[in-house]
Amino acid sequence: MADTQPPNQPPTDVQPEEGPSKSALKKAAKAAEKAAKAAEKAAKAEQAAQAKAEAEVDFSADFYGPLPLNQSQSRPRRPRDDLTTLSSRIGETVLLRVRVQTSRAQAKMVFLNLRQKTDTVQAVLIASAGKVSKQMIKWTAGLADESIVLVEGTAEKTSEPIKSASISDVEVHISKIHLISGLDTRLPFSVEDANRPDTEVDTSEVQYNRVLLETRLNNRVVDLRTQTNQAVFKLQGAIGDLFREYLSSHGFLEIHSPKLQGAATESGASVFKVSYFKGAAFLAQSPQLAKQMAIAADFERVYEIGPVFRAEDSNTHRHLTEFIGLDLEMAIEEHYHEVMETLDGMLKAIFAGLRDKYKKEIQVVQKQFPAEDFKWREGPEGTLRLTFKEAVEILVEDGVPREDLDDFSTENEKRLGRLIKAKYDTDYYIIDKFPMALRPFYTMPDPEDPTLSNSYDFFMRGEEILSGAQRIHDPQLLCEKMKSKGVDPESMKPYVDAFRMACPPHGGGGIGLERVLMLFLKLNNIRRASLFPRDPKRLEP
Amino acid sequence: MADTQPPNQPPTDVQPEEGPSKSALKKAAKAAEKAAKAAEKAAKAEQAAQAKAEAEVDFSADFYGPLPLNQSQSRPRRPRDDLTTLSSRIGETVLLRVRVQTSRAQAKMVFLNLRQKTDTVQAVLIASAGKVSKQMIKWTAGLADESIVLVEGTAEKTSEPIKSASISDVEVHISKIHLISGLDTRLPFSVEDANRPDTEVDTSEVQYNRVLLETRLNNRVVDLRTQTNQAVFKLQGAIGDLFREYLSSHGFLEIHSPKLQGAATESGASVFKVSYFKGAAFLAQSPQLAKQMAIAADFERVYEIGPVFRAEDSNTHRHLTEFIGLDLEMAIEEHYHEVMETLDGMLKAIFAGLRDKYKKEIQVVQKQFPAEDFKWREGPEGTLRLTFKEAVEILVEDGVPREDLDDFSTENEKRLGRLIKAKYDTDYYIIDKFPMALRPFYTMPDPEDPTLSNSYDFFMRGEEILSGAQRIHDPQLLCEKMKSKGVDPESMKPYVDAFRMACPPHGGGGIGLERVLMLFLKLNNIRRASLFPRDPKRLEP
Repeated sequence: MADTQPPNQPPTDVQPEEGPSKSALKKAAKAAEKAAKAAEKAAKAEQAAQAKAEAEVDFSADFYGPLPLNQSQSRPRRPRDDLTTLSSRIGETVLLRVRVQTSRAQAKMVFLNLRQKTDTVQAVLIASAGKVSKQMIKWTAGLADESIVLVEGTAEKTSEPIKSASISDVEVHISKIHLISGLDTRLPFSVEDANRPDTEVDTSEVQYNRVLLETRLNNRVVDLRTQTNQAVFKLQGAIGDLFREYLSSHGFLEIHSPKLQGAATESGASVFKVSYFKGAAFLAQSPQLAKQMAIAADFERVYEIGPVFRAEDSNTHRHLTEFIGLDLEMAIEEHYHEVMETLDGMLKAIFAGLRDKYKKEIQVVQKQFPAEDFKWREGPEGTLRLTFKEAVEILVEDGVPREDLDDFSTENEKRLGRLIKAKYDTDYYIIDKFPMALRPFYTMPDPEDPTLSNSYDFFMRGEEILSGAQRIHDPQLLCEKMKSKGVDPESMKPYVDAFRMACPPHGGGGIGLERVLMLFLKLNNIRRASLFPRDPKRLEP
Repeated sequence: MADTQPPNQPPTDVQPEEGPSKSALKKAAKAAEKAAKAAEKAAKAEQAAQAKAEAEVDFSADFYGPLPLNQSQSRPRRPRDDLTTLSSRIGETVLLRVRVQTSRAQAKMVFLNLRQKTDTVQAVLIASAGKVSKQMIKWTAGLADESIVLVEGTAEKTSEPIKSASISDVEVHISKIHLISGLDTRLPFSVEDANRPDTEVDTSEVQYNRVLLETRLNNRVVDLRTQTNQAVFKLQGAIGDLFREYLSSHGFLEIHSPKLQGAATESGASVFKVSYFKGAAFLAQSPQLAKQMAIAADFERVYEIGPVFRAEDSNTHRHLTEFIGLDLEMAIEEHYHEVMETLDGMLKAIFAGLRDKYKKEIQVVQKQFPAEDFKWREGPEGTLRLTFKEAVEILVEDGVPREDLDDFSTENEKRLGRLIKAKYDTDYYIIDKFPMALRPFYTMPDPEDPTLSNSYDFFMRGEEILSGAQRIHDPQLLCEKMKSKGVDPESMKPYVDAFRMACPPHGGGGIGLERVLMLFLKLNNIRRASLFPRDPKRLEP
């Protein structure tokens, strides 16, 4: 309005008189000086007031700063919010415990990229008189990446999608920010870099922000914080859930068999030896013997999820010295294909469950590990089943010398996978009727051709994920086969005895959890599918 | 009817004439002789016919006899029936794969007690011309106990309940019986005997059919077949399911951490050493370090079900060298009681789930192990919580010298359990605020009294089943506490480093699955709650 005075103007009651005189001029000059001084004073007072206001903010732990070590001193019961709920809470005050993934300070504001598991959101802190001081801005801008903070703010709708955040339609306007846990050392790499597409195969790409697998694994705790890894391990958990869900609904019981064994069983060469008080024990290379004994003990259908140990010095992309076995064993009524079909139904339930319930996580992983969606047959034609002989013919037809195909090398397995994908458009198939010579002593021979066996392998993207068979439940035949494979039945007496007291015909299979996860997502290295992988060269972290 | 002839009578056309004469008498005598011969002939013919019919039955594999070894020769797809469905199938033909628990032959019949998991049913085979031959009776009567047979018969309603079978209202009238798998050796004990109430405590009872625990464990496959053990391990599986179900619905993710570790962690004395290629590894005595690192890696809430290894040479009723740990860890927002309450809610969900969904199994176990039902508080008053100090006072009041109570001995723990049961009528309670001196280095001290800690134990029937605490997430305080307990922080570098890059406040706990099972059912020895138990003296079967 026209009649209002702008601030810091001289008082209106001091006006030069009409008709200038010397004294009048002097007076006027003095008055002007006085007015200027008054204006200066007023300005100073205002500055002081503002400084005081800011000082009050600065010294109040209510707005920002480190929190004392949480030793459970108090319990105000203020619920923390989940980033995934923000889009539905526009205009509301939210309280978030989050990581600072990155921060970027401008003149009077700080932009933060805040992270919670697979999600990130942009937050902004803007200097504002009496509310957000320059000190608060400075302190916030100084927060190290990966700091854990407690943020209070308002969820605001953004005018344009924020591309740098997974939640692109919301921005948090921060009113309070406190440090819950800070950094005591330098980060080995930034989590943002670790989340970029991995291009180990394409070495032409610029390297500066590529984080090597070895570096990641050496600093696995930081590596696991990436959105990709948060999704990978959510999917790992999902596979276990889907496995149990399917089997529980098909009459299976979960068992837990001991990993410490009295004798080096199955094949003595590849087990780890343990000092056991004054003697020795061995780590189970599978729950094979125990789960068969559970069948002899009338549990009918059993499964186990547990670690299996392989003392093989192989440093490949698909071998670990310790991995999680998803094992099952079941009594057979008529034919071992009952088992094969159960395994098949279970795997298809896992694939469909992942696709249908974990779309978001699969998409998060695909950003870093681009891959075609995993394909399998869901129609009435059923899963593709080939016999070992038929698989050999496919490879021979493609030019592989028949004499190289007594067993499948990893390379030929992958080649077969490509040929099958081209011909049948599936990443998932079963090879049945393996030669007896390739299978362990406990495998049931084929009733018509003793050189073949009632056994099968399951494949994903050209790599084996499951091996199984009908087992020999007859003690005489079992002992015969043990001897023919150079195993002394006396060395496995408790196992053989289980069949001497009557055991139903049975079969089963063992799946490598990490392999299923790696191949479903095409992670290219099994270490990425294990929380803290173990191989011949790695026992830490 | 009056006009019908009984079988084997002389032909009716040969009758003595009226008015006897010599020749007539002679004739009559001849006729009688002829008639007798004819009768004899007819009888012989009938016998021959019956013998022929029986011979046909006998030589037909359709009715009885051993089946050839099941090598999956054929697949007629005839579904087998479950014993539990018989009561609803009166009058119908059923097909059962069952164990012969016992058999008892009478003149022309055999009674069989057939078993399937937790159930038994009576079956009877009665000699019947043209259907069930004497040879079939004899063969069936000769079946060894524990043989696995395929039985076809009719489900018949019984006039009186059959006390010797768990399914008392049905009897199976056998028409066909075949041997699927027989015995190749003598049974170490009968499964019927092994299912009798165990009276290890009451040594006054007649001993002849009591099966000692040691004998059972040496022949665990047969021991596990008892109805009791079938129920015990169904309940073990149920505990795992209920644990997961509760935690999944509370935002927890299942993880799998490695059991092979590079360093002997937590407390070096009690870990098993493993030969690891040219070096050494150690078996994890808990997933403690890994699950804390998973929290530092932002998984927020994690659980694990897996083996834990304890190299302690203690041969007590409640220690195993390998057992299943139900572990969880979670970020804390305000107070460690958030963790304690999650653990409490989870355990109460397990107890209620077992009681509500597994009534039958609990009753089966109680027949062999009589026990009062497990009691816990379900009302709004909540689970009984005492501080360590309060627990000490209860024992002091009962006459235990205060100087013996720096820590609780197993005996004092049990005494406390009895006192609490008498006073509060609960078998389940929490003791909070343990002295810092009794807890591991990673335990968060109490904020007000540094001699106390933010830690708790949970108890069932006076025995500890769970130990947990808030952990130290601050690397400085952690290193300080490590040093004060004689642990070099450098020896656990990957673990300590996890906290140097910011970690939220967190806490958790670890439960022994076998302890929960043993104490809920009062099995009195933890070996009974483990499928194939491991202790310092036992590595087999």
